[in-house]
Amino acid sequence: MALNLSHLPIKTRSFFCNSSAQPVSAAQNASYWSSIDADINTYLKKAIPIRSPETVFEPMHHLTFAAPTTTASALCVAACELFGGNRTQALPAASAIHLIHAAAYTHDHLPLTDRPRPESKPDIQHKFNPNIELLTGDGIAPFGFELLANSVDTTHPDRILRVVIEISRASGSQGLVDGLYREKQIVDQRSRFEFIEYVSKKKYGEMHACGAASGVILAGGDEEQIQKLRNFGLYAGTVRGMIEMKSGLEKKNIAQIEKIIIKFQQLAMKEMEGFQGKNAELISSLVTEPILCPA
Amino acid sequence: MALNLSHLPIKTRSFFCNSSAQPVSAAQNASYWSSIDADINTYLKKAIPIRSPETVFEPMHHLTFAAPTTTASALCVAACELFGGNRTQALPAASAIHLIHAAAYTHDHLPLTDRPRPESKPDIQHKFNPNIELLTGDGIAPFGFELLANSVDTTHPDRILRVVIEISRASGSQGLVDGLYREKQIVDQRSRFEFIEYVSKKKYGEMHACGAASGVILAGGDEEQIQKLRNFGLYAGTVRGMIEMKSGLEKKNIAQIEKIIIKFQQLAMKEMEGFQGKNAELISSLVTEPILCPA
Repeated sequence: MALNLSHLPIKTRSFFCNSSAQPVSAAQNASYWSSIDADINTYLKKAIPIRSPETVFEPMHHLTFAAPTTTASALCVAACELFGGNRTQALPAASAIHLIHAAAYTHDHLPLTDRPRPESKPDIQHKFNPNIELLTGDGIAPFGFELLANSVDTTHPDRILRVVIEISRASGSQGLVDGLYREKQIVDQRSRFEFIEYVSKKKYGEMHACGAASGVILAGGDEEQIQKLRNFGLYAGTVRGMIEMKSGLEKKNIAQIEKIIIKFQQLAMKEMEGFQGKNAELISSLVTEPILCPA
Repeated sequence: MALNLSHLPIKTRSFFCNSSAQPVSAAQNASYWSSIDADINTYLKKAIPIRSPETVFEPMHHLTFAAPTTTASALCVAACELFGGNRTQALPAASAIHLIHAAAYTHDHLPLTDRPRPESKPDIQHKFNPNIELLTGDGIAPFGFELLANSVDTTHPDRILRVVIEISRASGSQGLVDGLYREKQIVDQRSRFEFIEYVSKKKYGEMHACGAASGVILAGGDEEQIQKLRNFGLYAGTVRGMIEMKSGLEKKNIAQIEKIIIKFQQLAMKEMEGFQGKNAELISSLVTEPILCPA
C-alpha cells in the first residue's frame, strides 16, 4: 500500500523512504548495520567457543546463533559510535543484549502445555530436548552480564555498572518479560491496538531503549544525550515490534496500526533532530521500514 | 548412624559435633544464620513488593520466596562480616544469589515432557501456570544483577563488577546450569559416586564458593583471603549437596558417600585454619551437619 507522507516534514519523509534525496544511501545503510552485526557475531563466536564440557557449550553456542539478530544490539554499537566511542567499547554490551534476546527466544519456543500458539507463528526446529533448551537459556543470560563486567573499559567501572542496570531492567519484569507475559494473553478486538502497542513497547521498545542508552553511556555522553537516544530507541523498537506484529492482523485493521506506527516514527525522528552527520542518519534509518516504502 | 571421627584432628572434630567444647554454641550458631536469612528476606521483600503490573509482580514475589533459602546467600554475608565488612554491603549480592537460586528452583520444577523425575523428588505445588513460571524465572535472575549494580557501595564499583562476574559464572554454564544438566542424566551404579560429587560441586559448591568469595571481595579482603574463602565455600557447598543427594542412595552406599563427605569437610576446615574468632567459627559451622552428629 502507498502511504501518504505529505503531512510529515521533508526531513522526516526522507528517512521514511529510500529516495535519492537521502544523504546516506540504502547501500551504505545496509552495509553499516551488517558490519555491526558481523562484529557482534565475531565477538560472540570467540566468547562462546564449543569447548569442554561439550554437552553444555554445544547447545549454548548453537542457541546463541539460532536466534535472529536484534537491532537493539546493533543500536547499542551505533549509539556509542555516534558519541565518539569506539566499537570495541560497545561490543560486550551489544553482545549481552543479544544473549538476553537469544535466551528469551529459546524459552519463547519451549514446548509448554499451556501456550496458545497462533498459526502465524510456526514452531522452530528444535535441535535439543526441552530440558537442555530451558537450562541453556538460563546459562546464556547471565553470561551476557559476565562479558559486560569483564569489559575492556576498566577505567570507567561506573559506566559498566550503569549498563548492567540498563540491561537487567530492560530484560526483566518491567521490560521484555512483561512483554512476553502479555503476548500470551488472549485479547478482544477492541483492545487489540492497545495490546499490540503495549507488547511492542515492552518486548522490543525497552530493549532498543536500553541498547541506545547503553551505547551513549559507554561513550561518555551526557544525561540529555542518554535520554534522547533512550527515547529514540523506545520509539524505534516499538515501531519494529508493531511492524512485526501487524502481519497477524486482518487487512481492514492494517491501516489503523500503520497510523500508530507513523506516530511513533515521527516521535523517534524528533529525538534525533539535534544530531547531525552520517552516524545520526544511519541511526535514524532504523525507523525507515521498507514495508512502508514500496519502491 | 554413629560416625567414627577418631581419625580427625581434635579441632576438626569439635566442628563436626556440637559438643560442649565448641566455643560457639549451637544456639548462637543457629541464631547467627537465621538473623542473616531474616535480613536477606527483609531486603528482598522491600525490593520486590507486589506492585503494578500485578500479573508480573505477584508471581515474581511469590516464586522468590517459594524457593527454600540457600546457605550460599548467607555465606556471602558471613564472609563479608568476617573481614570487617558490614551486613548492608553484602545484602544486595546475597539477595542476587538467592534470586538466581530461586529462578533455578522455579525452572527446575517446570513440567517438561522429557524430564525424568525420581520418586524421591515429588513435584512442588504450582500456583501459576508453566508459561508464567518460566517467564518469572527469566525475570527474577536479571533482577539480582540490577540490585547488585545498584548497591550502596558506590565508592568501589570495581568490587561490584567483580561480584557480577562471580555470580554470573557460578550461576551459568560452568556452575549451576552445568550441575542441573548433569543431574538429569541417568548414570550407572559404577559412576554413581563421581556423579554425586560432580553434581554437588556444580549445583551447590560453585554457588557457595561464589557467595564466600563475593563477601570477601565486598569487604575489601585480599586475594589470598578471597581464595581461601572461595575454596571453603566450594567444599562446604559440595558437602551440603552430597548430604542432600545421599538421601536417594541405597543403605549400603551411604557409608561410602559419607567418607567422601568427610574428606570435603576436612578440606573445608583446612581453608579456615588461619582465621580466628567467633565469626570464623560460625562460618566453619556450615560444614557441621547434624546428620553426621546424632546427639
